[in-house]
Amino acid sequence: MDEPGFAWRDATVAIVGLGLIGGSFALALREKHVCRKIIAVDRDPETRARAAATGIETAAALDAIAPADLIVLATPARAIIELLPRVGAQARAGAIVFDLGSTKREIARAMRTLPAPVQCLGGHPMCGKETAGFAAADANLFRNAVFALTPLERTAPQTVARIAALVETFGARPLVLDAERHDHIVAAISHLPYTVAAALMLVAAERARTDDLTFALAASGFRDTSRLAASNVAMMLDILLTNREHIAALMRAHAQAENHLADLLARGDEDALHATLERAAEQRRALFQNQKS
Amino acid sequence: MDEPGFAWRDATVAIVGLGLIGGSFALALREKHVCRKIIAVDRDPETRARAAATGIETAAALDAIAPADLIVLATPARAIIELLPRVGAQARAGAIVFDLGSTKREIARAMRTLPAPVQCLGGHPMCGKETAGFAAADANLFRNAVFALTPLERTAPQTVARIAALVETFGARPLVLDAERHDHIVAAISHLPYTVAAALMLVAAERARTDDLTFALAASGFRDTSRLAASNVAMMLDILLTNREHIAALMRAHAQAENHLADLLARGDEDALHATLERAAEQRRALFQNQKS
Repeated sequence: MDEPGFAWRDATVAIVGLGLIGGSFALALREKHVCRKIIAVDRDPETRARAAATGIETAAALDAIAPADLIVLATPARAIIELLPRVGAQARAGAIVFDLGSTKREIARAMRTLPAPVQCLGGHPMCGKETAGFAAADANLFRNAVFALTPLERTAPQTVARIAALVETFGARPLVLDAERHDHIVAAISHLPYTVAAALMLVAAERARTDDLTFALAASGFRDTSRLAASNVAMMLDILLTNREHIAALMRAHAQAENHLADLLARGDEDALHATLERAAEQRRALFQNQKS
Repeated sequence: MDEPGFAWRDATVAIVGLGLIGGSFALALREKHVCRKIIAVDRDPETRARAAATGIETAAALDAIAPADLIVLATPARAIIELLPRVGAQARAGAIVFDLGSTKREIARAMRTLPAPVQCLGGHPMCGKETAGFAAADANLFRNAVFALTPLERTAPQTVARIAALVETFGARPLVLDAERHDHIVAAISHLPYTVAAALMLVAAERARTDDLTFALAASGFRDTSRLAASNVAMMLDILLTNREHIAALMRAHAQAENHLADLLARGDEDALHATLERAAEQRRALFQNQKS
């Protein structure tokens, strides 16, 4: 933050898309008094009214981003890709275009076509909530969360450092990695859990069609394992379709692991089942021993 | 509780196995002053010492159950099946043998060989904790939980009514169904979620072997969906192996649902994906709308 000739406190920040993530970014900027001016762009009049009620300056049209030093794109991933040519046309030379989409590779590919004087960088805060929209936005959403930053080859190291410093003011922990690596990782630890939960819900609901007492016996185990199935489907489709190869491969690996366990179970191979399930149990315990649960 | 000629307050209750469930049963009986006398049988001296420290009378040998009006078997399912012939030999005429195993069909089959003057009934409280053992036992564990009761053909209706009244004193909600139906249901809403979580943990850990940043990006979605993978494996094996046909069939159905979703994703069939995932989301939301979350 004490880089010579640059200070976030002099900057104008435009945020496009005031959902949970964009709204929380705007609220965090304001609460920490990070920058001189915040302009929030959203097409929905009701969302703008909610944001305006918290004192945030809003605009309906994208040309409001023109004076910004930082342009934060916080719409779903495919909308970001569609917006980028217009953002490139509006952004002033030297501005940083920073997106918060949940997948990074296809957005990075689209960012390569931005005009050369525009800086650009991908980002993805590893946090979320069941509830979406500005109404659920929270200035503390990013606190203690890992904030993935995915620079392109053209991204100046200084840009990465500035954005890392910015998200640190929100209490987030920046982690720099490339877009392709990010997408492969989140396929395993975020997108696969969603598809697994959705398939669980479908199978259990199919059983419930045959036996109406099925869900009367459901307890916390089913509740937690199926939780992600209730995620916003439009948002999840956007994620799945922009990361499809990695996710489809991991879903097939998961189905194969399950079929293998089912085979061991069907033939009563207790030793092999014990060894495999004990490995899963130890991995899970080791993982969350070091994390807050 | 006001049945003529019978009152739990005059009864002696023996509990065999002082783990989380048996220990909680003993503590709930004592806290509600339900019965005249409680005898807790456990082979482990340390567990007996812990129980004795809370004022519960303990014994090491099974013959301590001889005077009991109610004998509660709270060991894992396969240990219950092994114990039943000895329990039948010790139990006095008219005593109720009530087991709390997590699967019911194989135990019910073993109960059919009990001497005719002994009453018997299966039970399964739909609650649990991550932590096992008497140290985690809690007099309030059964409060608001569904308590499945699975009578045999030989079980007198009066016996079912007495046990239902007993678990109601713990704040539980008795639900009577047959053992086969119970096992089919819990395969879908309890055992399948465990195997799904274990397979998820194995697939993610395999990815982490290739990329050491994998778990650095894991957040609450992965944490909740994988939680059951950390369950006690000895306990889960006991459950899986005494309910294997139902569980293996549902695991295969789940794998098939995932492969189907992976196919839709790989070919980018957005409409079909949307319809299927929206169905899962609506089912999940409808389910937990009416339940505490």
